[in-house]
Amino acid sequence: MAHLKSRVTVVGSGNWGSVAAKLIASNTLKLNSFHDEVSMWVYEEILPNGEKLSQVINRSNENVKYLPGIKLGKNVIANPDLENAVKDANFLIFVTPHQFMEGICKRLVGKIRSDAEAISLTKGMEVKREGPCMISTLISEQLGINCCVLMGANIANEIAVEKFSEATVGYRKNKEIAEKWVQLFNTSYFNVSAVQDVEGVELCGTLKNVVAIAAGFVDGLDMGNNTKAAIMRIGLREMKALSKLLFPSVKDSTFFESCGVADLITTCLGGRNRKCAEAFARNGGKRSFDELEAEMLQGQKLQGVSTAKEVYEVLRHRKWLELFPLFTTVHEICIGRLPPAAILTYSENSPKCPLLKGSAQFF
Amino acid sequence: MAHLKSRVTVVGSGNWGSVAAKLIASNTLKLNSFHDEVSMWVYEEILPNGEKLSQVINRSNENVKYLPGIKLGKNVIANPDLENAVKDANFLIFVTPHQFMEGICKRLVGKIRSDAEAISLTKGMEVKREGPCMISTLISEQLGINCCVLMGANIANEIAVEKFSEATVGYRKNKEIAEKWVQLFNTSYFNVSAVQDVEGVELCGTLKNVVAIAAGFVDGLDMGNNTKAAIMRIGLREMKALSKLLFPSVKDSTFFESCGVADLITTCLGGRNRKCAEAFARNGGKRSFDELEAEMLQGQKLQGVSTAKEVYEVLRHRKWLELFPLFTTVHEICIGRLPPAAILTYSENSPKCPLLKGSAQFF
Repeated sequence: MAHLKSRVTVVGSGNWGSVAAKLIASNTLKLNSFHDEVSMWVYEEILPNGEKLSQVINRSNENVKYLPGIKLGKNVIANPDLENAVKDANFLIFVTPHQFMEGICKRLVGKIRSDAEAISLTKGMEVKREGPCMISTLISEQLGINCCVLMGANIANEIAVEKFSEATVGYRKNKEIAEKWVQLFNTSYFNVSAVQDVEGVELCGTLKNVVAIAAGFVDGLDMGNNTKAAIMRIGLREMKALSKLLFPSVKDSTFFESCGVADLITTCLGGRNRKCAEAFARNGGKRSFDELEAEMLQGQKLQGVSTAKEVYEVLRHRKWLELFPLFTTVHEICIGRLPPAAILTYSENSPKCPLLKGSAQFF
Repeated sequence: MAHLKSRVTVVGSGNWGSVAAKLIASNTLKLNSFHDEVSMWVYEEILPNGEKLSQVINRSNENVKYLPGIKLGKNVIANPDLENAVKDANFLIFVTPHQFMEGICKRLVGKIRSDAEAISLTKGMEVKREGPCMISTLISEQLGINCCVLMGANIANEIAVEKFSEATVGYRKNKEIAEKWVQLFNTSYFNVSAVQDVEGVELCGTLKNVVAIAAGFVDGLDMGNNTKAAIMRIGLREMKALSKLLFPSVKDSTFFESCGVADLITTCLGGRNRKCAEAFARNGGKRSFDELEAEMLQGQKLQGVSTAKEVYEVLRHRKWLELFPLFTTVHEICIGRLPPAAILTYSENSPKCPLLKGSAQFF
């Protein structure tokens, strides 16, 4: 019955994509219902020594560029041909940077199995004025297939060295499929749970970056743990309130999952959004985020600042600015309209001050 | 109508008691329904220079021993005579170390106004085998008065210098009284909210110390932010699950308040429980907590270790050990039955391992 076995393809081979392939490949070896082989689409690159990245991965079993030093498992097969990589798969893992997602989906229309199931690991959807463009929805609509999401407090490099962490699978209706995804990802050091709340899980992965900016400001102002904990809590409250306003089906309990409180904690303790925001506040807002990003992140991009802007546009468009004092103030600090200390300055004349009890607490 | 004005007494004058008196004294000056004067009972001590602590406080307006450098407000009056300090008060704030609470209540029987309202700021109730001995219940039953609680992410010294923080008032039935307490404590830098859930709020203040021990172990094992966030999340889940099993009235939403997630964050980032547990793990469990406490805390006491033991007794008595793998494992590490790394070691044969999905997640 080998032909009835499921086949898995990972679409993406960056840092997180490579770790995902490693996790899944360790499980397909054990699961009878899956082929051992895990296909991994690689955006082909020529390495400095002239070799092709996909060939090096297949020879050395390592993604020498994006996850050096970690064996992916011999059953991970790198494939530079996107269409060929996906054509037999009925389990597709999407884990490319979000700006490439739409283009990749377009290339895949009509090229995938009609019974395929998808899951998105990509954080950082765009938020348009009308509301968020969920990446799971983009995949679902473009390809006509069901799409779950997997989010959580998971820093790829820590999972790669098998440090314990957790993740949350969000699913829409089909619990059985969600459990398949849990089977594929769950290991002794990577604890995965499923919740029926795609939107809640996916929004957590995006909105937390705005809170991380606020937490970085608090760090840069040397306010201490008390204040930082308060800002993180207010941020979590606004994440929950906005998610529920946008999607009434979002559940409170989702924010207690790894994708919620745990990912928020990780992001506000480490993380590049927090780090750049700290530097921004230490410079009194006199050096722009663009400048700090270029200097501190070696080409990586800050998502929190652009997400804060996008969220602000939604809030303004819907006349909700005053309900979300923290989100609003973060954006106004980022663009220089308010000083970094505004995150903490109480003013009875400023209903937008996050320290006032925003109505968000009532949701 | 001055005789109808309410009178406030703070029972206790340690670090947190002095900050509470400062907060309240700034508000009674503004609130017409309260006498300006705030009475603060001081357990009399003779200072090295021979002066009495209460006299120095009244002369200098500073608690030179427990909150040096901070002006309390001229309307804070230290009083070394407990009975005299409380006799006219109808708002009583209890903020003495928990081991003295029962003795103080006994001394106050029949000595307070019958219409008095109480609030407890004391964290760290004892948990007996039958269940927790809430300090609010102790006060209520001994004195025959209503008792609220105030908990949250509040490190006294940070609030003393007016860094922003938050707190949660838990009340049983009377919302109007809860709002009075909010009025008395809330300032521009101290944001207080009220929730109808005394038990949930008070249990948060105690159970978080057990989670902080676990977080300290993770720090001592150098596991990184991912793992730490996961342990904090699992800890929050067990706090919620145990509180709800003990008191079905406890609300999920309470754990999103300052007393819940925010206090947990503060305690797991700084805090003496975390600090000693980190040292314990770094020493591979070879130096006892008693030894580390004596060396590191200059006479202050660790609550997490004794609370972990008490919680373990409750869980064993009720046959719930396997539902609470994190709480259970923390105690077994503290007493040397398991190595510190057990907090992170997955074993399919150990249903008590916190990394397995404990049933607590289903509550």
